[in-house]
Amino acid sequence: MGRRLIVVGAGAAGMSAASAARRVDEELSILVLEAGQHAAYGLCGLPYFLSQVVPEVDSLRAYPPDFFRDKRGIEIRFGAEVVRIDPERQIVHVRIDGDIEQLAYNRLVLTAGARPVLPPIPGLDDDHVFAIRTVEGSIRLRRLLDAGHIGHATVIGGGYIGLEVTESLAERGVSVTVVEALPHLMPNLDPEFSAKVEEEVTRHADCKLNTAVKEVTRTNDGLQVGLCDSKAFRTDAVIVATGVRPASVLGEMIGAETGPAGALIVDDRMRTSVPNVLAAGDCIAPNHVVTGSPAFVPLGPTANKTGRVAGTVAAGGDANFPGVVGTAVVKVFGVGVARTGLTLSEALDAGYEAYATDATGRSRAKYYPGSAPVEVRLVHTADGRLLGAQFAGSGDDVAKRVDVAAVALHAAFSVQDLTELDLSYAPPFAPVYEPLLLAAASAASAMRRRMETVA
Amino acid sequence: MGRRLIVVGAGAAGMSAASAARRVDEELSILVLEAGQHAAYGLCGLPYFLSQVVPEVDSLRAYPPDFFRDKRGIEIRFGAEVVRIDPERQIVHVRIDGDIEQLAYNRLVLTAGARPVLPPIPGLDDDHVFAIRTVEGSIRLRRLLDAGHIGHATVIGGGYIGLEVTESLAERGVSVTVVEALPHLMPNLDPEFSAKVEEEVTRHADCKLNTAVKEVTRTNDGLQVGLCDSKAFRTDAVIVATGVRPASVLGEMIGAETGPAGALIVDDRMRTSVPNVLAAGDCIAPNHVVTGSPAFVPLGPTANKTGRVAGTVAAGGDANFPGVVGTAVVKVFGVGVARTGLTLSEALDAGYEAYATDATGRSRAKYYPGSAPVEVRLVHTADGRLLGAQFAGSGDDVAKRVDVAAVALHAAFSVQDLTELDLSYAPPFAPVYEPLLLAAASAASAMRRRMETVA
Repeated sequence: MGRRLIVVGAGAAGMSAASAARRVDEELSILVLEAGQHAAYGLCGLPYFLSQVVPEVDSLRAYPPDFFRDKRGIEIRFGAEVVRIDPERQIVHVRIDGDIEQLAYNRLVLTAGARPVLPPIPGLDDDHVFAIRTVEGSIRLRRLLDAGHIGHATVIGGGYIGLEVTESLAERGVSVTVVEALPHLMPNLDPEFSAKVEEEVTRHADCKLNTAVKEVTRTNDGLQVGLCDSKAFRTDAVIVATGVRPASVLGEMIGAETGPAGALIVDDRMRTSVPNVLAAGDCIAPNHVVTGSPAFVPLGPTANKTGRVAGTVAAGGDANFPGVVGTAVVKVFGVGVARTGLTLSEALDAGYEAYATDATGRSRAKYYPGSAPVEVRLVHTADGRLLGAQFAGSGDDVAKRVDVAAVALHAAFSVQDLTELDLSYAPPFAPVYEPLLLAAASAASAMRRRMETVA
Repeated sequence: MGRRLIVVGAGAAGMSAASAARRVDEELSILVLEAGQHAAYGLCGLPYFLSQVVPEVDSLRAYPPDFFRDKRGIEIRFGAEVVRIDPERQIVHVRIDGDIEQLAYNRLVLTAGARPVLPPIPGLDDDHVFAIRTVEGSIRLRRLLDAGHIGHATVIGGGYIGLEVTESLAERGVSVTVVEALPHLMPNLDPEFSAKVEEEVTRHADCKLNTAVKEVTRTNDGLQVGLCDSKAFRTDAVIVATGVRPASVLGEMIGAETGPAGALIVDDRMRTSVPNVLAAGDCIAPNHVVTGSPAFVPLGPTANKTGRVAGTVAAGGDANFPGVVGTAVVKVFGVGVARTGLTLSEALDAGYEAYATDATGRSRAKYYPGSAPVEVRLVHTADGRLLGAQFAGSGDDVAKRVDVAAVALHAAFSVQDLTELDLSYAPPFAPVYEPLLLAAASAASAMRRRMETVA
């Protein structure tokens, strides 16, 4: 038998790895083991399947089922759960149809993704409790919605997935209560930016902040959500969106080094600390370009990129991945919020002497219809090194604007460097002073004033 | 008398220079001499004033007339035409109300902007011939439009101003003929991208490419446009948009060094070759970051930035401007096209061994409503250095995307560096593979293949 690459997990990272490996080595035997029944699904689209924005779940598939076998010579085995790895003998033990098979590998790529964190709340095993992380669960919830069985829903967790689901349900005419244990929605933004999200969400849903769920109980009349400090209420369905953790257990079992949130540590070629075992996607903590330390930021584009690098390297090719800067954007009803790099809280926690400079600009020339405020925060050091940026505005106005700051982080630019950027301008698309440049000019002059004061 | 700064021209660059100088030195006497009657107007908005998108011309003003005097202690004299500069004695000769005054300066900043190029076509002195470069001319044309006197208009020149005016007139119900002497509209894009513009414009207007205007003549029935190689046609108004040239004559008269298109050459602090004379805005050719040579790219954001640097330096402060990368975007009906850096033609002309890699991606997740194609061209050297990028797509989809490439040019990134960028992703705003990253991946692998072939 020739050389064999085994990939564990058929998500974005796994299928990117398998495809990249094929591009390097046309002869390699490539086998993908997937515990579920679906390959290469865009899980990020599941909220939009609930809202009927995406009519059919198959629209979320990047490729048709037979594409990988027929076009790329990649074998995928579904319902194949890897239970044990023997890294010495280079063998995986797989449960398929109740039997255990042993499969030898030359290189192994772990891409098992991330799993929802289920908080220790009694009652989450009810079949009207969902975590929007699998195709199967989403199909089940969508059927209940389509049948008109969900008048009220409760979303536990006010992070980005919780809020995307809140929007989707509200668009279906469902009345939604969002329960968040922390003082703010979108707790991974600085409070000033969370506040903009809260303002928008409370227009469309009931928000209970600083509120913990005690239990979920089934009654004659649906479900009852019990809270720690206030009155219980009834609901028809509960969606748990309290974050994810890396599905890194297989790596841990063989002694691979782990880091933040228990995610697997990899080098810039996606190699774990175990020989011939690589990892990619939501189960790893890649390098964060700003801090130089590993970070767990599970998102689709990184899964694709790290998968491609892992597959290339596993097949004997050359590739590397310098790291993430932590760019994310989310649409919450009419509002878009975005971040890249570190928030002020994160920068201070990481030990930087960090400052935030805020500015409000506009999305288009002020006289052009549709011109709307864009709020920007730059986070930077005392001497002007850019550490991060946050944006809030109406939907489309912020997504690609945050990317300008993301590239600046990759380039290790200062706020002064930002002020000099030659960015696009035309009245229908941008104001003559980009909001980011306004913030940068303000940060640069604040910095000069501080340095003069010091001198 | 104390120190005096004289600024020639009250456009974006001039008022930025005056304001920046005031921030550096609260005592400085600052005098702005403006030949026309308006200060700090956004001339880029004039097409939208014609279309009634902007109802009042005053909406195009960045600040009310007295703002600079009352809030910033900046004196502006309108109708003040500088006729001569004596750089030895540091005196300007100004014609005001028919008289010549002599005014002494310590520092002089030239920001006279750019003037429309009027081709040598007989008949362009008719009062129904316009160049959309002044507030006065635009008000006159708008009155004719409002009175219903323009059924058909002719736009000479198919660059971005010509096409913005074409769109504005078409939106007023005017039938428009665009006459372009070159083989393509938007001749500053590569032909593949010009073609997308042509396709869109021909849906809304009559386009005559490769066509030169011989003469414009007045008849009983309006104007007649005579062409060199085809039939004359009648029209109600002619708009000349055949480009601009720097209003650099005052600088030339005192021996200041000039460069591309006759624009003034400045160092990175906006100093001309004449002592104590600085320049900024559309009359200069600042450094082009990609080529390292001066380039004439007259656009509003650069006028603001270079004005600010000139004013700061003129007042004794410290600032510099590293240069432009030539970023521009234009909306043409439903299409947006954008460019940054060099086109393939420009790169080849500049002597680079340049390649173009094209890719088509999408503006949002393919399953999300409003998802539309975004076409990208990366221009790069054989070893992968990024030289430029062009984008075409539906309006809002390209403007901020080009900025990502612009920042990459400022950072001197390679196409490989681009593939690694951590850009924002959420189904409503972006696909998991950004179009730019698709193009970069394709360029990087083409580059590797070429290098393997060479090795």
